[in-house]
Amino acid sequence: MKLVRFGEKGREKPGLIDSTGKVRDLSSVIPDLAGEALSPASLKTIAALDPASLPLAPEGARLGSCVARPGNFVAVGLNFADHAAETNNPIPEEPVLFNKAPNCVVGPDDDVMIPKGSLKLDWEVELAFVIGKRARYVEEKDALDHVAGYCICNDVSERHFQIERSGQWTKGKGSETFGPLGPWLVTTDEITDTGALPMWLEVNGEKVQNGSTKTMIFRIPFLVHYISQFMVLDPGDVITTGTPPGVGLGFKPPRFLKAGDVMRVGIDGLGVQQQTVVPFQL
Amino acid sequence: MKLVRFGEKGREKPGLIDSTGKVRDLSSVIPDLAGEALSPASLKTIAALDPASLPLAPEGARLGSCVARPGNFVAVGLNFADHAAETNNPIPEEPVLFNKAPNCVVGPDDDVMIPKGSLKLDWEVELAFVIGKRARYVEEKDALDHVAGYCICNDVSERHFQIERSGQWTKGKGSETFGPLGPWLVTTDEITDTGALPMWLEVNGEKVQNGSTKTMIFRIPFLVHYISQFMVLDPGDVITTGTPPGVGLGFKPPRFLKAGDVMRVGIDGLGVQQQTVVPFQL
Repeated sequence: MKLVRFGEKGREKPGLIDSTGKVRDLSSVIPDLAGEALSPASLKTIAALDPASLPLAPEGARLGSCVARPGNFVAVGLNFADHAAETNNPIPEEPVLFNKAPNCVVGPDDDVMIPKGSLKLDWEVELAFVIGKRARYVEEKDALDHVAGYCICNDVSERHFQIERSGQWTKGKGSETFGPLGPWLVTTDEITDTGALPMWLEVNGEKVQNGSTKTMIFRIPFLVHYISQFMVLDPGDVITTGTPPGVGLGFKPPRFLKAGDVMRVGIDGLGVQQQTVVPFQL
Repeated sequence: MKLVRFGEKGREKPGLIDSTGKVRDLSSVIPDLAGEALSPASLKTIAALDPASLPLAPEGARLGSCVARPGNFVAVGLNFADHAAETNNPIPEEPVLFNKAPNCVVGPDDDVMIPKGSLKLDWEVELAFVIGKRARYVEEKDALDHVAGYCICNDVSERHFQIERSGQWTKGKGSETFGPLGPWLVTTDEITDTGALPMWLEVNGEKVQNGSTKTMIFRIPFLVHYISQFMVLDPGDVITTGTPPGVGLGFKPPRFLKAGDVMRVGIDGLGVQQQTVVPFQL
């Protein structure tokens, strides 16, 4: 199943993609793609619906982030061996965790704004997963029971803020618009194996990232288990799992985004995002 | 004004402390101490009420965290010169930011649970502030317009997770029960100057931290300004501002918490917390 949120920013409704690719309105069934609406029971109810019985969304409606603002937005760093190498970091012995501000989540095709004072705005195509059932000290074998589905995350990053403004990466990861999610939340019945998904990112038509989840160091079932040892993950929480090589910081010399640049971001089976970089606006 | 949340965990109601020290029920006025209920207009409405007109809360009701689960829970690290020294860190040139999981927030007198695998559980008395009005690129001179009030935060920390389990502190800061907040949210009309508040923490009756906000490096108006350059702060978000010397990690040899230990945590004008450390329970 492919779930979406559509409509104006801040007033999105939940929906699903029918077999003809049209968006159907789910707002009579669930209030939003958030919290308990992502539980296994709720997803089962939605899967049992006849999409044709649901109203069509307005033609050409904007897509919002495919889940509502999460309670927690966790990111895994340096989770691809070759990306760790390009950023001159050792391969981590355990997953490296950091946080994105939950309110940086935006729609898959919304503009990405250059923050004030930004010097080094960068891109990162990532596979994200969304929690459907509370995860607390979960065993790896049970991990996928706690996952509602998968989506693309562009883990937009400001390297000057992240690395050169005194310790801890969070400072360069949470500016508004730094978390495009979607277009779809694809449920785990539709994507049963995330072990070899091609993933790529283009800037102005040039393919700068061209990888695969095949080279991920720590995989999703382990990550659910691992993160749940350090914090409780609640329904609706989003975890983004790291990026393959080809970020701007890894180019020699480094390349960063400027106003007018267009990013296209894709993972096989999860759709395509497209964001335009826009100047800072107060 | 001293605002509280009272009642069973997960079912707290908002309240205020009247002039006799009793808790009055505010649930007919605001739904919770969260989001827009913390706005300047809402706080003005509450301040204009006659507390005697509000129902009394049940005698001896538990206090919950003095704000609802925040949308973001940001922490400032190494913000006291002498604490930076005791942990062998240089004095930061800019504030160091990290995140606590928003769902680790608990009541001021709730138990603190030792997480599974914990080796080095530690304490940190901190002054926290709560956002009342959206803060986005705020000037320092306007900063306090965005603050609803202040409370005590025990920034409970697991040093093994934080420092010895591969990069980024967030891993040792967000286990469940790691964020006691309260007893009161004291509004900015009642505490107009946070520049010299005595703050202390006792373990089993022994005063281990005995400091003052006088030795804070970066003060609250600057922190609101600074953090709002990197992320948007929304009403209800909590920012905890760092701890003075005397944490367990700074003792020679280091001292850490064990089951049965009792922490008492106080800041002048903000009340006193008391937590018992309890063993891990699945």
